[in-house]
Amino acid sequence: MADWKNLDTLDSYKKLSSSDHRVDLKDVLAGEAGAERVRNYSVPMACGLTYNYAAKQVDGEVLEMLNDLAKDSDLAGKFEELYNGAMINTGEKRLVLHHLTRGQLGNDVVADGVDKRDFYKKEQAKISEFAAKIHSGEITNADGERFTTAVQIGIGGSDLGPRAMYIALENWARANGRMLMDAKFISNVDPDDALNVLASIDPAHTLFILVSKSGTTLETLTNEAFVKNALKDAGLDPSKHMVAVTSETSPLAKSSDYLAAFFMDDYIGGRYSSTSAVGGVVLSLAFGPEVFERFLNGAAEADKLAAHEAPLSNAAMLDALIGVYERNILGYETTAVLPYSQALSRFPAHLQQADMESNGKSVNRFGEPVDYKTGPVLFGEPGTNGQHSFYQLLHQGKDIVPLQFVGFRKNQSGVDMDIQGSTSQQKLGANVAAQIVAFACGKDDNDLNKQFDGGRPSSIIVGEELTPESLGALLAHFENKIMFQGFLWNLNSFDQEGVQLGKVLAKRVLSHETDGALSVYAELLDI
Amino acid sequence: MADWKNLDTLDSYKKLSSSDHRVDLKDVLAGEAGAERVRNYSVPMACGLTYNYAAKQVDGEVLEMLNDLAKDSDLAGKFEELYNGAMINTGEKRLVLHHLTRGQLGNDVVADGVDKRDFYKKEQAKISEFAAKIHSGEITNADGERFTTAVQIGIGGSDLGPRAMYIALENWARANGRMLMDAKFISNVDPDDALNVLASIDPAHTLFILVSKSGTTLETLTNEAFVKNALKDAGLDPSKHMVAVTSETSPLAKSSDYLAAFFMDDYIGGRYSSTSAVGGVVLSLAFGPEVFERFLNGAAEADKLAAHEAPLSNAAMLDALIGVYERNILGYETTAVLPYSQALSRFPAHLQQADMESNGKSVNRFGEPVDYKTGPVLFGEPGTNGQHSFYQLLHQGKDIVPLQFVGFRKNQSGVDMDIQGSTSQQKLGANVAAQIVAFACGKDDNDLNKQFDGGRPSSIIVGEELTPESLGALLAHFENKIMFQGFLWNLNSFDQEGVQLGKVLAKRVLSHETDGALSVYAELLDI
Repeated sequence: MADWKNLDTLDSYKKLSSSDHRVDLKDVLAGEAGAERVRNYSVPMACGLTYNYAAKQVDGEVLEMLNDLAKDSDLAGKFEELYNGAMINTGEKRLVLHHLTRGQLGNDVVADGVDKRDFYKKEQAKISEFAAKIHSGEITNADGERFTTAVQIGIGGSDLGPRAMYIALENWARANGRMLMDAKFISNVDPDDALNVLASIDPAHTLFILVSKSGTTLETLTNEAFVKNALKDAGLDPSKHMVAVTSETSPLAKSSDYLAAFFMDDYIGGRYSSTSAVGGVVLSLAFGPEVFERFLNGAAEADKLAAHEAPLSNAAMLDALIGVYERNILGYETTAVLPYSQALSRFPAHLQQADMESNGKSVNRFGEPVDYKTGPVLFGEPGTNGQHSFYQLLHQGKDIVPLQFVGFRKNQSGVDMDIQGSTSQQKLGANVAAQIVAFACGKDDNDLNKQFDGGRPSSIIVGEELTPESLGALLAHFENKIMFQGFLWNLNSFDQEGVQLGKVLAKRVLSHETDGALSVYAELLDI
Repeated sequence: MADWKNLDTLDSYKKLSSSDHRVDLKDVLAGEAGAERVRNYSVPMACGLTYNYAAKQVDGEVLEMLNDLAKDSDLAGKFEELYNGAMINTGEKRLVLHHLTRGQLGNDVVADGVDKRDFYKKEQAKISEFAAKIHSGEITNADGERFTTAVQIGIGGSDLGPRAMYIALENWARANGRMLMDAKFISNVDPDDALNVLASIDPAHTLFILVSKSGTTLETLTNEAFVKNALKDAGLDPSKHMVAVTSETSPLAKSSDYLAAFFMDDYIGGRYSSTSAVGGVVLSLAFGPEVFERFLNGAAEADKLAAHEAPLSNAAMLDALIGVYERNILGYETTAVLPYSQALSRFPAHLQQADMESNGKSVNRFGEPVDYKTGPVLFGEPGTNGQHSFYQLLHQGKDIVPLQFVGFRKNQSGVDMDIQGSTSQQKLGANVAAQIVAFACGKDDNDLNKQFDGGRPSSIIVGEELTPESLGALLAHFENKIMFQGFLWNLNSFDQEGVQLGKVLAKRVLSHETDGALSVYAELLDI
């Protein structure tokens, strides 16, 4: 059994805290030694990805202390317990099993009387079979016509991850003859969200995927009613246009309102559900079940590497340790994720949920307050777009923001053009390489307005191309990084009590059971 | 002439810094006094909007000190100088004239021998005329068929603002019979961005809008070449499908490659250009020139209010002062913008540029380092989506993040449904009201995992409906807020030297003139 202790009680952390050794990026990246450092500060990841941390403020001395911290905190042991089915989600008293949706890392995990890996595989098989029938035309609309569009109705984890993954593979699928159905997403309770999507599709040829684990999510049920209404107005039978993704115990599970129901369970947190049926249905419909399988394989490969004990051969663990070093020792409050790939345009929004909802907490897994900083604010947009936007502050602002770049050597479509001596993809790559060095090394100028102090740390994950496999690996890398950081901070990364109070108060407003300030705010909004 | 001084040299700021008076939100929002506070802590804005700051950590005493700070810093005087044509952009030695694109606040401003208000109006008239010809079918494609889609090619300010404004009005336009053309946007140098957009349109019926002030933006010229190639491949003449938005001195201005050219100038910063031709062409094509005119009128009305001297009748100034109080006195490092309106889904991304690029600086307007914090990291996503994502950290994380909510009493489409006793729009409003109180007042719980400390400050801008007018007012509010904060911090908010170094290094990579670390990073990306 792992020993769950607060970060600041660990000897290795005390040593790290008391060390005044600091790495100057301008020094360590200078000259031939700097070039050598970029070659060496690199960890292979799954599916041909590489994690390069040469521009992070670490060196042999810091890495050794981080290595000690990893051992002291027993990160590998805790992960092992997790994937072997320990009750890691202490708040809700649940296992944490999203890794099992894509592979078997350890022992069989039996819960509620079933082997959970079998359960997830069976659901995937059901999804594959269903998708095949949709694609072949065995299941059609009432007029015997094929469905051409899938619309996912879900919010939070039922929206951000699947949406980000769909966008990530859209171009790849088009270039590789895998674009089987368009997908769209409805999430917000704002009626204009559903109306906007409904205005862009042909309901007669659309299959709606209703996603809610509990079957009680306010936004999702409201949007379901909205959509059913639209279907009826179009003279269609909603139950022939809708499938549900939910838990077996939810009110949606056995309803005749749906063509089919696919299941996940309470051991899959919403923000970790892209590799479960939550992502599986929409991605299998859009790109085919084989593509979803490849995505799962990439994630499984990354999970295997995350089980390595030594941080220097475990990119997720190393990334987590460096992040904690930056947050708790160097005192940086935020972090930016900057993929140089338009396909990853919503990947930062997904990570924002995955990271901030998991580790944005102030009590440890035993419900005791912690005295150290935990999860940072995370934000990001794709490059080069961000360069023409908020990078000004990143380069010359008063606070240092650690950066996580992502880049690929090839674009997804395979189509490119040489313009003024270089392709677009080369321009993209040149820009991310340039930014890393600009942030780290800066540039002196007599005009201080043009001075770049440098010393801004970044790492980069580089891959050959964003494919289903490398996307799966990228997703799992960050999921595992977040998990390791939760272990280090001694948090329960798998509950989200912080979202409850707002829900309770919103219900009170809707039933007009308010007084004081809340009632005046409600009036202001005409409720 | 205004006296430009560093924030920390002002007596009023010293007084503010030395005061240990702090407002406890739980106290001041409790009971009937709390209700009264919500009623009173409110400033009318333009176009029926209201700025409510009852859940900010201010009271009479703090407001008086902020009022003194506004006077001491001569915020109103500085704005007056700006709109009367002083050279406020000291770095690039330029006037700052985006307010003139939508109204005349002060004296005539003559620069380069022309009255600038006349110049901007003339360009708007040219745009209106052109858009009318496109809509009427007087200008068509080579086959005499109408253009149905507009695609803007631009990056940074030529993309984020216009894109956010287009998305903000799409549903409104559809509901009000104003949807004249679809619009799409290409920004990233990643070739997959252009290819994705090209895959979604019919080039034969598409008009491309090339936007680059200098006419030399790498990404935009690259994407132009990409698009021209696609047009030629489709057997079309690119010069009959493309207009330019640029400065009169740019290489694009007089080119026969374009159907028409519309001008802005060096006095309009990219991030402040939505009300110039940069936003004008695409919005006039999509929704008609009258709608763009209404948007400008909303902005002009907000500008007029921003010229008021007293912060309590000037929401932009008050918002700016409270933001500086939070950043410099209370020590908060980030801020979140959370619109409860799906139509504003990309408004936070636009503000991220507008704010972080303007005030993410470490030297004052004279090029001297400043010893105080300046612009914060800004991020945001629409609610209720964010509630199911990063709000966990906002409620229970270790750092306090000041929040800016936006909400409306009516949705744009006018279509809504009563589900379980309330409409979707009521649910949306109930949620934002609930969140404000949850963040500010929290909730005690014996289980500390379910404890909400409260004390998280927010303000809300509330309006009747998001229309062209109120959108213009909202945009101008934030532009003016950022301007006032730049005045307070004594920054030049209108240059962006921090984006230059990356460009220089990227060019070096592309011409293989690198060594050391940069050359290894370039290799890693296969350049």
